[in-house]
Amino acid sequence: MTDVLLRDGRPWGLGGPADILVRGGLIERVGEAVDAPGARVVDLGGALVLPGLVDAHCHLDKTLYGGPWVPHSAGDSLAGRIGNDLARRAELGVPSVERVTALLRTMIAYGTTHVRTHTDIDPGVGLRGVEAVREAAEGLPIDVTQVAFPQHGLLTNPGTAELLEEALKSGVEAVGGLDPAGIDRDPVRHLDLVFGLAERYGARLDLHLHDGGTLGAWQLELIAERAKALGPAAGRVTVSHAYALGEIDEAHADRLAHALAEAGVVVATAAVYSYPVPPVRRLRAAGVTVACGHDGIRDLWGPYGSGDMLERAMHLAYRSTFRSDDDIALALEAATYGGARALGLSGYGLSPGDRADLVAVPASGPGEAVVVHPGRTLVMKDGVVLHN
Amino acid sequence: MTDVLLRDGRPWGLGGPADILVRGGLIERVGEAVDAPGARVVDLGGALVLPGLVDAHCHLDKTLYGGPWVPHSAGDSLAGRIGNDLARRAELGVPSVERVTALLRTMIAYGTTHVRTHTDIDPGVGLRGVEAVREAAEGLPIDVTQVAFPQHGLLTNPGTAELLEEALKSGVEAVGGLDPAGIDRDPVRHLDLVFGLAERYGARLDLHLHDGGTLGAWQLELIAERAKALGPAAGRVTVSHAYALGEIDEAHADRLAHALAEAGVVVATAAVYSYPVPPVRRLRAAGVTVACGHDGIRDLWGPYGSGDMLERAMHLAYRSTFRSDDDIALALEAATYGGARALGLSGYGLSPGDRADLVAVPASGPGEAVVVHPGRTLVMKDGVVLHN
Repeated sequence: MTDVLLRDGRPWGLGGPADILVRGGLIERVGEAVDAPGARVVDLGGALVLPGLVDAHCHLDKTLYGGPWVPHSAGDSLAGRIGNDLARRAELGVPSVERVTALLRTMIAYGTTHVRTHTDIDPGVGLRGVEAVREAAEGLPIDVTQVAFPQHGLLTNPGTAELLEEALKSGVEAVGGLDPAGIDRDPVRHLDLVFGLAERYGARLDLHLHDGGTLGAWQLELIAERAKALGPAAGRVTVSHAYALGEIDEAHADRLAHALAEAGVVVATAAVYSYPVPPVRRLRAAGVTVACGHDGIRDLWGPYGSGDMLERAMHLAYRSTFRSDDDIALALEAATYGGARALGLSGYGLSPGDRADLVAVPASGPGEAVVVHPGRTLVMKDGVVLHN
Repeated sequence: MTDVLLRDGRPWGLGGPADILVRGGLIERVGEAVDAPGARVVDLGGALVLPGLVDAHCHLDKTLYGGPWVPHSAGDSLAGRIGNDLARRAELGVPSVERVTALLRTMIAYGTTHVRTHTDIDPGVGLRGVEAVREAAEGLPIDVTQVAFPQHGLLTNPGTAELLEEALKSGVEAVGGLDPAGIDRDPVRHLDLVFGLAERYGARLDLHLHDGGTLGAWQLELIAERAKALGPAAGRVTVSHAYALGEIDEAHADRLAHALAEAGVVVATAAVYSYPVPPVRRLRAAGVTVACGHDGIRDLWGPYGSGDMLERAMHLAYRSTFRSDDDIALALEAATYGGARALGLSGYGLSPGDRADLVAVPASGPGEAVVVHPGRTLVMKDGVVLHN
């Protein structure tokens, strides 16, 4: 593996221009006028250098990406979308290794180096989604981990719990959940079940929580209590969407934020449509890790999404009414370091010894990188230049 | 002027492929296998053909577009942004003919053929913004009309009313207003003043209304009453933003929608940040014209915005939680026909006799055009191919 010397980059957070020497897939040195005889030299022309982008919440298995446009065919209700999904996925060949591969290639081109994807598991589809995602990801320069996701109900869909367990046995890294109250109708048993699976299999846990208002807020309390009991591994438990945090009053949100921080619970958001967005600044101030993901991309649930995590961070910043560079940087943090904490990555960052998963953008700083999300100057995975 | 034959386009709404013959700046014929000896032939390769995009609400005079990134420097409050604007515009050379020109060139490249821009007028800046926009637009292939806009207060900013009148005398096409209650403190006198100016100068009227809830809704009633009294010219009065329509209950919004429709009042929205979005589907169902615009682009009020009206329509569709192609088409309608009605354009459209202001995109239909907002296949203004 050839050494690579990245000349004249501006590593995010360092404050000035620097060269980055990459050796054996790792960052070897960061500094001024680094000398590296024999290394391949790539001139970054002053581009901003970020650690690889992390999509901490997507649904690769559902995607229709790369095929012809499929007009959205579900009604406006959540129940309508679930029914439409079940009715049409077979007809459209979902899950499809080809479609997932096409989407992963686009994500790679945009500089995403790590993905956590929620893969549907139910008696109808079994583990076919898990297998399709594994097959697509295999050999591609991107790290994909999966969440065994009971999209069509857990307690309400007999046979699903056993399949989740089977998925974990097969090596799926995390177990999921879905609106323990609003959809699955029995929050305590639902949470006990998924936390039990996470404990037994040493798995991470990432729960979808769309339930809003006080119902959602109360479930966040239940989750924080169980996460605390699960042990000290901060970041092991993630709550995705958590619309309730964007709906309750600020004092209530603050109390919950402190409880989530104490329990090490991550909040992942995609800032989709007009749904409430958790208060990122408030959560960060309380010490809560915030991660960002795309949610669905061109699937039966909705036609939107590009695969570009800088664009997704723009949506998060925009919906958060972030105007200053410092605020917008919080959205970028969610799409990088925050996601890395959610996924439990080690060796993630821009310091010597970190894995050389890097993306460079022609931008003056995080504000411009997120707002403009320009084409990438460089994408590097494990020390290999994929695009420049 | 050479005739142009656009081969193999799919004009929006026609349902199938067609050729479009352009002669003397107008659409001469639309049909299958059009024969046009001597015409320049442009193959559209099956691209969707739209009438030129209409940005019905922007702020060209404020823009910092095309220059280096300027980190946002105002606080979170509206008063903070107003103060910051006044303090920093001179330092940053706003208004700037160069910056406005750079932004207009980008808008043109994206296929925008008509713009209505709200130009700040106050005793500090006088009519310099109006002159800068005129100078920038002169000679560019895009139609720019202005609204004399009292950004820094009307009744509360002595001397502004006289300057608005001076602007109208100089040929500015429309008069503006700004939160007659919330900012200008005297809604009745404010509205009487601007409606009076519109009547005296035969001008159009476009009022910013951020005031929310019942305060905003009540002002919409006042505006509808005055628009009705002003006469039958549908589309002469526009209310921009109209956040209140997205906040009040559905029955109230319906009543207001019918009043606005009856008075021919247009609602213009940009779907910015997390601010409420007027209910587009509900408004259209009641017969209200809905227009779409960018609002500010890279200025002291906020760093966002690209100049691409298809991307802006995406934001409107996304915030409206539009998933089906039919719904998304409402956002595209706002960025085309709706804007054209707001601006009072004649000869706008895709029929023989209409002006040949056209944009083509490689998309299967309005859904894909808005969601993906891909690079343009063709941009044509007054029959001249600007880009293909």
